[in-house]
Amino acid sequence: MDTAADTTAMRRAITLAARGLGSTSPNPVVGCVVLDASGQTVGEGFHQRAGGPHAEIHALRAAGGTARGGTAYVTLEPCNHTGRTGPCAQALIEAGIARVVYAVGDPNAQAAGGAETLRAAGIKAEAGLLAEEAEAVNAAWLTSVRLGRPHVTWKYAASLDGRVAAADATSRWISSAESRADVHRLRAEADAVVVGSGTARADDPQLGVRGIDGAVQPLRVVVDTRATAVRPGARVLDAGAPTLIAVADDADSRHLPGEAVLRLPRAATGPGLDLPALLAALHARGVRSVLLEGGPVLAGAFIAAGLVDKVVGYLAPVLLGAGPAALADAGISTLTEALRLDVTETVRIGPDLRVTAVPGSAARKEN
Amino acid sequence: MDTAADTTAMRRAITLAARGLGSTSPNPVVGCVVLDASGQTVGEGFHQRAGGPHAEIHALRAAGGTARGGTAYVTLEPCNHTGRTGPCAQALIEAGIARVVYAVGDPNAQAAGGAETLRAAGIKAEAGLLAEEAEAVNAAWLTSVRLGRPHVTWKYAASLDGRVAAADATSRWISSAESRADVHRLRAEADAVVVGSGTARADDPQLGVRGIDGAVQPLRVVVDTRATAVRPGARVLDAGAPTLIAVADDADSRHLPGEAVLRLPRAATGPGLDLPALLAALHARGVRSVLLEGGPVLAGAFIAAGLVDKVVGYLAPVLLGAGPAALADAGISTLTEALRLDVTETVRIGPDLRVTAVPGSAARKEN
Repeated sequence: MDTAADTTAMRRAITLAARGLGSTSPNPVVGCVVLDASGQTVGEGFHQRAGGPHAEIHALRAAGGTARGGTAYVTLEPCNHTGRTGPCAQALIEAGIARVVYAVGDPNAQAAGGAETLRAAGIKAEAGLLAEEAEAVNAAWLTSVRLGRPHVTWKYAASLDGRVAAADATSRWISSAESRADVHRLRAEADAVVVGSGTARADDPQLGVRGIDGAVQPLRVVVDTRATAVRPGARVLDAGAPTLIAVADDADSRHLPGEAVLRLPRAATGPGLDLPALLAALHARGVRSVLLEGGPVLAGAFIAAGLVDKVVGYLAPVLLGAGPAALADAGISTLTEALRLDVTETVRIGPDLRVTAVPGSAARKEN
Repeated sequence: MDTAADTTAMRRAITLAARGLGSTSPNPVVGCVVLDASGQTVGEGFHQRAGGPHAEIHALRAAGGTARGGTAYVTLEPCNHTGRTGPCAQALIEAGIARVVYAVGDPNAQAAGGAETLRAAGIKAEAGLLAEEAEAVNAAWLTSVRLGRPHVTWKYAASLDGRVAAADATSRWISSAESRADVHRLRAEADAVVVGSGTARADDPQLGVRGIDGAVQPLRVVVDTRATAVRPGARVLDAGAPTLIAVADDADSRHLPGEAVLRLPRAATGPGLDLPALLAALHARGVRSVLLEGGPVLAGAFIAAGLVDKVVGYLAPVLLGAGPAALADAGISTLTEALRLDVTETVRIGPDLRVTAVPGSAARKEN
């Protein structure tokens, strides 16, 4: 039976977990709160970076001897395996914790079994408290475990009439400074930022995170099938962060730095690259979350391939009446084929509106 | 000095006023609450239809003798002139009201002066309480008085990527049943509903209000410059409501019922009609509020002419990637010319998002 105190502690653990977004891959984000036997908070922690201590270890260290007889709240089932760090289930047992409440079971076969180990040691282990919120904060990692590919968020900024630029291609700025700052937060939470050749050619974007202290720079990825968009001196090739230029197997990429080139097969249909192959290559490099920043053509290809897990749209209260649309051909020719989403959040960002949505459970577009 | 009781009474008066939306034109909507000398509500009323009693008269009748020494709260300055009904200022004086609180002064020179008359009779008359809310409920009528033309609300329903139909022109239904019901409420509050020839041709809409008890049917207007879109038997020509088909001076409209034809000059530039002339003709017929329901081409012409006062967008959480955009050419070729709006409200309507916005005060597009 979960009490209000249980809920408060778990919600705090979820908040702590979120602090790790963008710096823990290929690991999940995890938060942990330890209460002593009298219900006082004596330790908090979160997983800060792959290779570093898990959340439980941080929290147990902070608690020290006061953890004995207490309760640990963890957003994800404590791990049972010895990786770069020892198993957390063992650490909880050794600290004398009497009860462990975790939100989400570990879907990773390699790490699972923590709850069983705890119970075998006589510790009460309970699952499911605030599971939905804990799933949401870990959506990228859970998706990557379940689907074997990175979680993809498509972000766009458009006018109210759905355009990303005016008739003469001017696009700076449709959305507000507040929205643009918010996008840097999205980048900081992602392992990789992906754009297409059109965006690279038109905007020469640097794609780094700016204005967020301590942010880990995401891998920058340009899908440049014919290797014609990114030229020597492009800002995306600066030293600010690692970069991959994804080109077709047969593209002439001699003008690009060799270590930046990722060769991939072309898509079976359509003009671009094989996107599942792109995501597999990123997954193999430890990328668990991708922020797809466009443009419309690449976004259309991702949607046509059923590879978008979340949509974040910044809608600026602006009308244009002409100019390119936010989304180009996504293989949808009639309304019954439309990709129907569920809106999960709408919030004002400065003068703009940010709409977050996920493919509808009932109407998910099948591959 | 306004008290909490004053604010409560005025807010109630505004709520009452809103009940008249759609049935009072060419008059404003007005609400009135009368409190007796001890502060008890003894009368309420609102202006229900042109030619009928004003709000104050309804409220004073309900209050009877208990109005003596009391306070009247009115959303608009009491009128001073004898039109189809006697002046309200006089009625308030005769009822023995001691104090009149009104939200908005009457901008109509013909009816103004009520406050002065009240003060000359020794009644305290105070202006400005909840003026902004009272202006909002009367926006259509106030706009029509100030600009000498009807207030225009452009309504559209689009996918998140800004499209009003799929590539094959299918558009039923992008938005939800809840949003479509909400549009009938907008229609009921408008004096006229206007669509263009493209919509008439593609959808053969009936344009009436359905599902709202007691709603006054708005005038139906189709802008059919060349008189080719509305054919005999079109649903918009049924007996459900009056209809005008606006055609160019030189169009052959012999196939249309003569009483439905409104002949107008063509626009000085562009392919359509002279829209200020259209609005003037509607204004002359008592229309104070227009709901412009599209399509994209007509909406673009209205925006290009600076004739849109409010935008209501129903955004469905749907992605299409192809199909016509919500807004066609509005005379905007580069981002600095964009029509910038201020969002005044965002609300979830079923699965959809309804965004209401008005042209920004700082960045209003000039004619």
